Amino acid sequence: MAAPSPGYSITLRVAAAVDRTSTFDLVAAAAATGAAITALDVVESTPHTVIIDVSADTRGVDHADEVAAAVGKLDGVEVKKVSDRTFLLHLGGKLESTPKVPLRNRDDLSRAYTPGVARVCQAIAENKADARRLTIKRNTVAVVTDGTAVLGLGDIGPEAAMPVMEGKAVLFKQFAGVDAWPVALDAKDTEEIISICKAIAPAYGGINLEDISAPRCFEIERRLRDELDIPVFHDDQHGTGIVTLAALKNALKVVGKNLEDLRIVVSGVGAAGNAIIRLLQVAGARNIIACGRGGAIGPNSSVDTEHKVWLQENTNPEGFEGSLKEAVVGADVFVGVSAPNVLDGSDIQAMNKDALVFAMANPDPEVDPAEALKYAAVVATGRSDYPNQINNVLAFPGIFRGLLDAEATDVNEEIMVAAADAIASCIPEDELHPGYVIPSVFDPEVAKKVAAAVAAVSS
Amino acid sequence: MAAPSPGYSITLRVAAAVDRTSTFDLVAAAAATGAAITALDVVESTPHTVIIDVSADTRGVDHADEVAAAVGKLDGVEVKKVSDRTFLLHLGGKLESTPKVPLRNRDDLSRAYTPGVARVCQAIAENKADARRLTIKRNTVAVVTDGTAVLGLGDIGPEAAMPVMEGKAVLFKQFAGVDAWPVALDAKDTEEIISICKAIAPAYGGINLEDISAPRCFEIERRLRDELDIPVFHDDQHGTGIVTLAALKNALKVVGKNLEDLRIVVSGVGAAGNAIIRLLQVAGARNIIACGRGGAIGPNSSVDTEHKVWLQENTNPEGFEGSLKEAVVGADVFVGVSAPNVLDGSDIQAMNKDALVFAMANPDPEVDPAEALKYAAVVATGRSDYPNQINNVLAFPGIFRGLLDAEATDVNEEIMVAAADAIASCIPEDELHPGYVIPSVFDPEVAKKVAAAVAAVSS
Repeated sequence: MAAPSPGYSITLRVAAAVDRTSTFDLVAAAAATGAAITALDVVESTPHTVIIDVSADTRGVDHADEVAAAVGKLDGVEVKKVSDRTFLLHLGGKLESTPKVPLRNRDDLSRAYTPGVARVCQAIAENKADARRLTIKRNTVAVVTDGTAVLGLGDIGPEAAMPVMEGKAVLFKQFAGVDAWPVALDAKDTEEIISICKAIAPAYGGINLEDISAPRCFEIERRLRDELDIPVFHDDQHGTGIVTLAALKNALKVVGKNLEDLRIVVSGVGAAGNAIIRLLQVAGARNIIACGRGGAIGPNSSVDTEHKVWLQENTNPEGFEGSLKEAVVGADVFVGVSAPNVLDGSDIQAMNKDALVFAMANPDPEVDPAEALKYAAVVATGRSDYPNQINNVLAFPGIFRGLLDAEATDVNEEIMVAAADAIASCIPEDELHPGYVIPSVFDPEVAKKVAAAVAAVSS
Repeated sequence: MAAPSPGYSITLRVAAAVDRTSTFDLVAAAAATGAAITALDVVESTPHTVIIDVSADTRGVDHADEVAAAVGKLDGVEVKKVSDRTFLLHLGGKLESTPKVPLRNRDDLSRAYTPGVARVCQAIAENKADARRLTIKRNTVAVVTDGTAVLGLGDIGPEAAMPVMEGKAVLFKQFAGVDAWPVALDAKDTEEIISICKAIAPAYGGINLEDISAPRCFEIERRLRDELDIPVFHDDQHGTGIVTLAALKNALKVVGKNLEDLRIVVSGVGAAGNAIIRLLQVAGARNIIACGRGGAIGPNSSVDTEHKVWLQENTNPEGFEGSLKEAVVGADVFVGVSAPNVLDGSDIQAMNKDALVFAMANPDPEVDPAEALKYAAVVATGRSDYPNQINNVLAFPGIFRGLLDAEATDVNEEIMVAAADAIASCIPEDELHPGYVIPSVFDPEVAKKVAAAVAAVSS
């Protein structure tokens, strides 16, 4: 059974008769259903009734109903309202635009707006590069999506993608002081998305592409990199690639192996899988087998897209043919960005000694992490409730911080490897162990180190 | 000679020998050039030297140089640095994106981002209208420009337009709590701008078009109003129209005339002129003569654009033909949104008794306001250094506040008249006089009253 999660946290507003001697039974009734009580607040007290807010993490919507029903069954207790704390947090959106300059009086207005602003406009008209000095372009990134591949939810549309984009913008600011703004496009055509991104670019110092489905995301990113003078970074590809590489580098130190010598099997050839493979190769990996739904991509596979052709030509040097389960036999590393439960414990057992398993499908990994850990030396997932969470938030805030600081016009794989090394370096070598190969997402040093490393290698 | 302006404010960092007995001569030297000293701050003191910041408003860049030279000529004084306070204020841009929710720990992250955010996304995917409740769409307006008609500077491009758009966003927030975000487009084609605005609309509860040149602005606005379900408002048209109508209504009370009876001459048939004429007609005006560069638009004028055809068919009921100067003879109201000094005092003298003059060309009005006041009952301009400033900031923040509060899907002329009435009502009737027909831009009641009036008539 799943554990209660703060993602399903509720607050019950309860009216209890004053002659009841204790509020303990409220807590006990909720806890008996498996809810994790997080707070109990008396809101109001009248001669006859006490109003109490009981907050609890639950396992999901059904469990929340169950908790409310259990509490409501108590004598002298009435549940007045059940609030979903996640929805409450999102009410009205999670982001605002805030003035950095005061407008208290006529003098302020004259400098920030007309007539003074005209001189600032003229300076930029004369030298466009001044936009990076005199406008928000200096510190601002567009978070662009078309809502076609949002989390595990798929093509839910731009409106429904906004809570994720807003959350991303919050993370940018919180972790690296980057101003980010959501651009959720009601457009799916590759050329249209490219031309819109080019048109909106004057206001931004970088573009973070997000949750755009493959293979369109590859073409959109490539073209924008060629045609714009600001860095363009598809986080679902490279963010995942960078954090995976960082964790893998530390895991290799734990087991004493070298990237160059490893047989690496990657399950999933979408946006993330593709980027991980390219980045691992840049970092030195030589023997990678990419597996799609039909098994390993090999010399005789039928490949239907440009990036699969690339995989066929640039991976699997031994020409292995077979299923994913066959591919992992004897492999040193498994990297999964695909689907839940495609492997079981026996598959991990069949890997090489000191196997490294990165099972990152969300919310359910490619192999049960507990099973995997029986046979592998290091297990990492995308989940926060297991050790070694591979989370993009370790990468993108610091990367854009560094790119903006360097006034970078581009981003490339050298920069990505530098970012991965910086993330890996946040754990001192004497602290590395199988359950700690990647720093916490709340480690405040990560974004700073990534930013410095990125700025150092950016042009 | 122009007066010193805070738009040209400088700070001189001055090193003065400690054995000088006074800093008064610094102030005197600067003031002797005509600068207005605003502050004198001792920054640092060493055994030999005192560092002093002298801040002053100047008449312009040349005058600023003159001030620095005058101060630098004093014995024992060296000017180390001249800072332009307007540019300093704009450094790094004037706007930031700020999280409304904290991300202190794993619980916060689980609710604001994954996994909790997925449920919020799903709710919106099931009911798109929830975007107005659960995303920034609820309170956010796009400020869209293509940089083709920025202030009086013309087509300076999207990068150079940004300082104005950012300033506009600051005003939105400061005066009405509206989150506004600049969208400066590197695109000039009407159809492309329309399709981009439609594509970015999911994130926004309204679109404020800004500084887009005529006649493209008319088509862009009309099409977006038809094709989007959020209000679209071209401020250069309707903002000016609304504030002009508000001031005119109050001015009519001062002189005891009725809008229906007046002969009104409008100089300028671009975005603002067109919108003013339409709104005055909705409010009851029946006899308006529109003058372009070739004089009055009448039955025999050659008209080359759709909106000039409209003017020909819907204004000038008496079929007047002639120049602007001929048109104002005997007129009750002159409204100028055109070019400097197209009229002189004698033209105002030739108007009807108790003439009302709105000379709003910036920075130099259609007629010298001091000359006009010799003959007119009320004179208004676009400038802050004369009474009765017609400033759009009286309108747009409150209008969008009201539209967002009402979850409006459209904006129309009924709403605009309601906004004008609300602005006019901010001056109690017993306080109205010829030098006070429009409230101050810093009157905190204006946006509130406009918002309430707009929300009341919005659907």
